[in-house]
Amino acid sequence: MTAIPQPHPKLGALIDALGDVPVVTEAATVRKRSRDFFWYSPILNAQLHGKSADVLVSPRTEAEVMRVAAACARFGVPITPRGAATGNYGQAVPLHGGVLLDLSGLTEVEWVRGGVVRCGPGLVMSELDAMLAPQGLEQRLHPSTKRRATVGGFVAGGSGGIGSITYGGLREPGNIRAARIVTVEPEPHAIELRGDAAQKVNRAYGTTGIITALEMPLAPAWPWVEMIVAFDTFAGAMAFGHAAALADGIVKKLIAPIAWPLPSFFAEVRPFCPEGRAVLIVMVAEASVESFKALLGGDGDITLERPASDAPGQTPLYEYTWNHTTLQMLKADRGVTYLQCLFPHDRVLESVGEMCAMFPEELLGHCEFIRFGGRVTASALPVIRFSTPERLDAIMALHEAHGVMIANPHVMTLEDGSRHKRADADQIGFKREVDPMGLLNPGKMRSFVPAPRA
Amino acid sequence: MTAIPQPHPKLGALIDALGDVPVVTEAATVRKRSRDFFWYSPILNAQLHGKSADVLVSPRTEAEVMRVAAACARFGVPITPRGAATGNYGQAVPLHGGVLLDLSGLTEVEWVRGGVVRCGPGLVMSELDAMLAPQGLEQRLHPSTKRRATVGGFVAGGSGGIGSITYGGLREPGNIRAARIVTVEPEPHAIELRGDAAQKVNRAYGTTGIITALEMPLAPAWPWVEMIVAFDTFAGAMAFGHAAALADGIVKKLIAPIAWPLPSFFAEVRPFCPEGRAVLIVMVAEASVESFKALLGGDGDITLERPASDAPGQTPLYEYTWNHTTLQMLKADRGVTYLQCLFPHDRVLESVGEMCAMFPEELLGHCEFIRFGGRVTASALPVIRFSTPERLDAIMALHEAHGVMIANPHVMTLEDGSRHKRADADQIGFKREVDPMGLLNPGKMRSFVPAPRA
Ligand SMILES: Cc1cc2nc3c(=O)[nH]c(=O)nc-3n(C[C@H](O)[C@H](O)[C@H](O)COP(=O)(O)OP(=O)(O)OC[C@H]3O[C@@H](n4cnc5c(N)ncnc54)[C@H](O)[C@@H]3O)c2cc1C
Ligand SMILES: Cc1cc2nc3c(=O)[nH]c(=O)nc-3n(C[C@H](O)[C@H](O)[C@H](O)COP(=O)(O)OP(=O)(O)OC[C@H]3O[C@@H](n4cnc5c(N)ncnc54)[C@H](O)[C@@H]3O)c2cc1C
Repeated sequence: MTAIPQPHPKLGALIDALGDVPVVTEAATVRKRSRDFFWYSPILNAQLHGKSADVLVSPRTEAEVMRVAAACARFGVPITPRGAATGNYGQAVPLHGGVLLDLSGLTEVEWVRGGVVRCGPGLVMSELDAMLAPQGLEQRLHPSTKRRATVGGFVAGGSGGIGSITYGGLREPGNIRAARIVTVEPEPHAIELRGDAAQKVNRAYGTTGIITALEMPLAPAWPWVEMIVAFDTFAGAMAFGHAAALADGIVKKLIAPIAWPLPSFFAEVRPFCPEGRAVLIVMVAEASVESFKALLGGDGDITLERPASDAPGQTPLYEYTWNHTTLQMLKADRGVTYLQCLFPHDRVLESVGEMCAMFPEELLGHCEFIRFGGRVTASALPVIRFSTPERLDAIMALHEAHGVMIANPHVMTLEDGSRHKRADADQIGFKREVDPMGLLNPGKMRSFVPAPRA
Repeated sequence: MTAIPQPHPKLGALIDALGDVPVVTEAATVRKRSRDFFWYSPILNAQLHGKSADVLVSPRTEAEVMRVAAACARFGVPITPRGAATGNYGQAVPLHGGVLLDLSGLTEVEWVRGGVVRCGPGLVMSELDAMLAPQGLEQRLHPSTKRRATVGGFVAGGSGGIGSITYGGLREPGNIRAARIVTVEPEPHAIELRGDAAQKVNRAYGTTGIITALEMPLAPAWPWVEMIVAFDTFAGAMAFGHAAALADGIVKKLIAPIAWPLPSFFAEVRPFCPEGRAVLIVMVAEASVESFKALLGGDGDITLERPASDAPGQTPLYEYTWNHTTLQMLKADRGVTYLQCLFPHDRVLESVGEMCAMFPEELLGHCEFIRFGGRVTASALPVIRFSTPERLDAIMALHEAHGVMIANPHVMTLEDGSRHKRADADQIGFKREVDPMGLLNPGKMRSFVPAPRA
């Protein structure tokens, strides 16, 4: 039994101060909206069970965001931003109640020009792409949750995804042009973070300001073709995937090798995943399909090939990749969880092979080829058969001991998530400026100590 | 004095057989058109002096190309294709007289769709880009001779250039979609080479068929900004250039570090090249300029920044890069020549540094960052103060001994040009099919032995 948490004592006063900004206090709804996909991790699932905001607030404009921020600062109420709550580590779960700030109403597209869009943070990523398509443009990167996730949630909580094989992750200079944020103070103000400075909000879990607008660079919206290619072995899928990843003349968006039995959980496309074989899921520009096939030669068998689409009615193949791979299996088997790995670029195939060999029973191989710091390498989201927290930690430690970087998805603070690192010095310093009282998503930036109250 | 070469004995009969295909026999004109930029090399300049075709033939359609090919096969007359003759190794210089086949009349654009253009080989590359621009498209790669060179000459003679920092060279799978060629036989036929097979004509110097159409994949025509950035040292320009080359979020087309005193020869833009300093010439998408500057920080000084344009009236900055860098100095000083190097990707800065230190007096540093086999590395076209052929060879040998690959630009056969290699096995075998008598650009594919006459 969880103790029923008490709402913040100043809640009534706070709500009064919000005027006509839409508010929901009905407990079941607020509690439901306070969850994200933390249940992927058995560890976080236990820790975050029952956490909830006290009130859901849904501003429609930046002015209304400021009004909420001012009220929260005045009454010392925590404030946790929320996009679509598709995050994996409880990023959008309020640890200390207070306001759950639903940003999904900020959906204005201010302008599109010179290959850049400026828009509100609440736009659903697939909807933004649909709006950009007539101009031949689309977002450079998106998570596999594109059809639900918001642009702001991706910038504040995500790292990369479909498109990262060409552009790298959000952390690469140039992938976020600018962010506009609102501070949490009695008199909030807006700050424009341009270029490098925008990294201060990237993957900061909403602890360093409320994003109210983003300027994102775009990519050409080629007609994309999605394919499933079957290989006898995971190593075969890896080797060809690597070759394709290195082929700069082949324009691509996704290269995901996935070991059997993971494809056996792939619902709708199960018929295209031959029993016992590994698959490679790819998205290639139509103009490059012929060259892709020439490179493939007789190495693998294309079992499915069709135009890619985000439209309702067909599940896009990318929803079997990135962290959706894990989800497909979790739907059938709650006894598994996953890791997030980054392999050394200069021995990527060897290193992946070593890890597969080291955990033959526990680890189901799944990689994503990406660019990282200008080099082609593989990240991985292998599925792990869970036994105990200690064993999970041992598996991660063994990866690290063999030169594989781990971003721990079983912790809720941003520092622990990136293992070896503390919060970015810049981010902590910046937080002091924009959220001096530490009201934004408290508990997620562990190293931050709020300034003493005056 | 060169002996006056005798025209081919069957020349008259051949010309008769051509019907109304335009022909020029006036010796001065034919001789002038039989030259390319081989004079960059003091060695080739001596060897190729006075070489000329007997007749210049300018077909306007594929049917006319076939008619020429048939006549040449019937009378055993050599046939050397010519685009704009901007090649550097006498590629388009007929060694054994005969027909100089001017393809610049084949300029039809058949179609543009799905990010691909299909067009005649004779189109000047800047003109093709001008036609594509209204659709937001452009060619992926072009040589620095874009304003003169033809699409067909680039595919048959070139390797890469502006754009290779994103797409690699022409050799990368996917960068040539298809080529249509005409064979040289009494009854010529056309062959469509798709995908990988198109590599049979890439950099084959026109020895493996006469290209009559090409299918080339395209890139988005971003608004490009060109800049000159000054650095105190060449090493500084190299280090920042490398960082920019690795920044996948910064969309770019050109990153060329050039050591002093080369910029002192840069005519129109000389005022933007500060005395004694190295420069970096770049082309960056407008949307990425801000991030580029953030990455630069205080490292270098931007002395010129303007929208890039191929239009007449302003020399595009790319005409100071790639092999134009050499040209700018050669205009003032015929005592220099150049090399073509490829540095190892895993120690590119060290390796370039070693070579600069090894030849402090003779070598003027000039690199081009590119992707090669999926890795960011630097190619180089350093300017060399020429003393003797032996010394030039020694300098190349020393590069190779230190792990730098050399493509020798002082030889006229395609085998010698790539040093360690023989002609691609595929290309030789293929030549037997399409040019059994060895009439196409004879002498350029050294390892080819024509089939004995029946
Ligand atoms: C099946 C599955 C697959 C996934 N695949 C990927 C993937 O491929 N790549 C990837 O990077 N992630 C992936 N994720 C994680 C997540 O879906 C993405 O990061 C997504 O972009 C989050 O967007 P969201 O709108 O749901 O954000 P939310 O989950 O609502 O928020 C994420 C974080 O951002 C903060 N935030 C949201 N909006 C704002 C704002 N306006 N201002 C300040 N802070 C804000 C929140 O407080 C929270 O800390 C996956 C998750 C699942 C469940
Ligand atoms: C200043 C300068 C800078 C340069 N920079 C670059 C550079 O950046 N990158 C690069 O790769 N090269 C470069 N080059 C070399 C050259 O300019 C390019 O390769 C150019 O693309 C050649 O095109 P062209 O039309 O002039 O071809 P040509 O010189 O006319 O021909 C090149 C070769 O192709 C053959 N050929 C031409 N058309 C056909 C056809 N239709 N069918 C079959 N064979 C054919 C010819 O026989 C010849 O062997 C440079 C040269 C100079 C002088």
